[in-house]
Amino acid sequence: MSAALELLEKSAGEVSAQVRSRAISAVEVTQGALDRIEALNPQLRAFITVMTKQAQAEAAAVDRLIASGRDLPLAGVPIAIKDSFDVAGVPTTAGSKILANSRPQADAESVKRLRDAGCVVVGKSSLHEFAYGFTSRNPHYGDCRNPWDPARIPGGSSGGNAVALATGMVLGAIGGDTGGSIRLPAALCGVVGLKVTYGLVSRHGGVPLSWSIDTVGPMARTVADAARLLQAMAGYDAKDSACSRLPVPDYLADLGRDLKGVRIGIPHQGFFEPLDPEVGTAMQDSLEALKLAGAELVDVDWPSLEPVVGAHRSVLFAEASAAHEKMIRFQAAELSDDVRPLLQAGLFLTSGQYLAAQQARRKVIEQYRGLWSRFDLLVTPTSPIPAPEIGATTTRLDDREVPLVRAFLDLTLPFNLTGQPALALPCGFTRAGLPIGLQLVGRPFAERLLLQAGAAFEAARGLPARVPAVVRT
Amino acid sequence: MSAALELLEKSAGEVSAQVRSRAISAVEVTQGALDRIEALNPQLRAFITVMTKQAQAEAAAVDRLIASGRDLPLAGVPIAIKDSFDVAGVPTTAGSKILANSRPQADAESVKRLRDAGCVVVGKSSLHEFAYGFTSRNPHYGDCRNPWDPARIPGGSSGGNAVALATGMVLGAIGGDTGGSIRLPAALCGVVGLKVTYGLVSRHGGVPLSWSIDTVGPMARTVADAARLLQAMAGYDAKDSACSRLPVPDYLADLGRDLKGVRIGIPHQGFFEPLDPEVGTAMQDSLEALKLAGAELVDVDWPSLEPVVGAHRSVLFAEASAAHEKMIRFQAAELSDDVRPLLQAGLFLTSGQYLAAQQARRKVIEQYRGLWSRFDLLVTPTSPIPAPEIGATTTRLDDREVPLVRAFLDLTLPFNLTGQPALALPCGFTRAGLPIGLQLVGRPFAERLLLQAGAAFEAARGLPARVPAVVRT
Repeated sequence: MSAALELLEKSAGEVSAQVRSRAISAVEVTQGALDRIEALNPQLRAFITVMTKQAQAEAAAVDRLIASGRDLPLAGVPIAIKDSFDVAGVPTTAGSKILANSRPQADAESVKRLRDAGCVVVGKSSLHEFAYGFTSRNPHYGDCRNPWDPARIPGGSSGGNAVALATGMVLGAIGGDTGGSIRLPAALCGVVGLKVTYGLVSRHGGVPLSWSIDTVGPMARTVADAARLLQAMAGYDAKDSACSRLPVPDYLADLGRDLKGVRIGIPHQGFFEPLDPEVGTAMQDSLEALKLAGAELVDVDWPSLEPVVGAHRSVLFAEASAAHEKMIRFQAAELSDDVRPLLQAGLFLTSGQYLAAQQARRKVIEQYRGLWSRFDLLVTPTSPIPAPEIGATTTRLDDREVPLVRAFLDLTLPFNLTGQPALALPCGFTRAGLPIGLQLVGRPFAERLLLQAGAAFEAARGLPARVPAVVRT
Repeated sequence: MSAALELLEKSAGEVSAQVRSRAISAVEVTQGALDRIEALNPQLRAFITVMTKQAQAEAAAVDRLIASGRDLPLAGVPIAIKDSFDVAGVPTTAGSKILANSRPQADAESVKRLRDAGCVVVGKSSLHEFAYGFTSRNPHYGDCRNPWDPARIPGGSSGGNAVALATGMVLGAIGGDTGGSIRLPAALCGVVGLKVTYGLVSRHGGVPLSWSIDTVGPMARTVADAARLLQAMAGYDAKDSACSRLPVPDYLADLGRDLKGVRIGIPHQGFFEPLDPEVGTAMQDSLEALKLAGAELVDVDWPSLEPVVGAHRSVLFAEASAAHEKMIRFQAAELSDDVRPLLQAGLFLTSGQYLAAQQARRKVIEQYRGLWSRFDLLVTPTSPIPAPEIGATTTRLDDREVPLVRAFLDLTLPFNLTGQPALALPCGFTRAGLPIGLQLVGRPFAERLLLQAGAAFEAARGLPARVPAVVRT
């Protein structure tokens, strides 16, 4: 367990530097990751498939390439792949037993790019079935659990990634975000997750949920590591027709710069109320940290989220059901009880309802573009509450019972609808030791500023390193 | 009538040069156009609204600007605006009596740009109701008639523009093309029509038919005039979210160059068979003219048009019905008998059917991108037959009865589905004196090469100038 324990004290940047300088080997790093997975995965269910043999062989190959003089920017960094993205030779279950025997021939484009950069894939991580939910409970492969309190959900749909990062099973991960699926588990597990601009990262080789909304992005333990992963993942791919041809900037160049001249908007309505009191306190401290880093804070009136939530739901429902139509019609009995009705409901939407939602979406995009003239980044909580217990469906906020689906997704899905980039990162802990998350949101394709601000916030906030109790027991 | 007769002997380029040098006045030119309209519009129904007073005042204003030293590239060019685009202060009927009393406050963006360049709007031209048909018959405002034989249709939906250009009522026009609505009337009336790349010209201020397919483009009597109009119309507009931000090239720069090094593909299957024999002969002569101009002709196998036609129909049906849903539900009785069932049918498409069509569309786009690696432009007939008589619904081709909707649109709609630019231009006449049209198709945003090829073809083909008999009687 010693090597594995060390992963929690290292960044992907450090590990790859040490592997490149041959101070440590990719094989040792990978073994540490695999040991941690072996110890904790039976309890936490972070992985659906652990790729022990393949990872060991892949790590040895990385060491040989380094020995032969090849430069690999992410040499030996162990990563998890959400099990809705293809890794050649192992099933892509998408969390469903219907796809348990799939056997993709090639890596998803984002996986291929990270492997080309030297990353070692250690396994396929748990998710909500078909990425269509936020709890990461899964009747087919076991409920994924929050490492800070295994009686609680890790969030979802990319729950396994967040658990693996929080416990030192990996130093990076590929997730997908259609309504908050990267950011929400990042917030509830205390790690970093970046939902990228629609079109920045290829979705080729992924099981689609909502074609016009889906994004693929990195998850990591630090903002700098997320930037390193993004640098390798981003950029044009002819195999995803939504992919942008814009050149990819240097995401690492501005990390470490302060936020002088950067205006950060605070949208009180909808995003800051109602809020769990401990989340509220952490947010106040976080705003102070942003000021400390040099940012100018700007209060902004925010328009109602209701039309945004409605448009997102219609687009998502229609596209998810269209993507999985055959499955719904012929294998509905095999779907989990919470996903089945969502997929069935979408079949009944008319094209007119779908198009009305896409029209409403365009209005929101225009509206947000206008709002962004007054600030450069928006800051919100990622989630108004810390991780709830497994089985909960509502939460109590300001003496009202709020459905979890609204409490969680209302703060994240607006930027899926508009296609903007949003970064979730840890900003505190509750007294009970549950992580609290902050969200920063940028203009389309402004990931560079977003990552700069995230790194500056990390430095200014200076949270002490913590390790979930499960790791030590 | 003398000034009007001259319009048929002049290009927009010549007229604007003479107005700018004050050899003639915009007022004289406009009066010529208005005189011709007054003489022929009662019979041909090219215009729904003639803007006599406004055009005279606008022409006088152009003359004053020229006198004060302003340079206007299209000074004094009389133009028609398809009555689905807004001109401030006059109704935009879209050919429907439901909109007879609309009163837009501002010009459509394309109208504004042509007016800023010095054009004089003389009227709102006839169209098929809601641009949803190819005959330009119209029970509300009168059937638009082909000037080469008033017992025949002019084609549609932008029929009025083509009639006005062919008879010297205008020297330019703004049309819309969602399935062939610019190119088909251009072919049947012997004028030039350019269907632009999706996103090149703003659709702001237009009545939508199919949001993800609709394009706005110029119609003219010569390719050079179409290029001049496009130069003023093209380019980014924040008010149409589909508008591209690509810089606009100089469309006039290569006009007059030959076609050495340009590969032109000939897709025999689907496009060249079946063909009316006289159209076939004109096409053979036209291919010779392209060779004479220096082009290299390449025979290409073409994939079946059936999936293309099916996907186009589903996208169009769903989007048109979504755009006009309230009207269909509450004012269906006021719609014309051929448009009503189309609009009603679209309401029943599910979002899944719509999304399947959009998926099929992406496959066609990929397929055509691959085909275009073997050539730079594609050449086809614009229509396999000359103008049919008013009331016909089928045509006889190779001893088979073919519905007109298939005969006409199958050759034009593929490039609406893929968003590519396509230029329709005259390439001959039948023995009975009906125009025959050629279509050239380019890669997305390759309008410059397309216009160059069109101009080179015009010069090499050297058709003698003809005037419809109705003009002389």
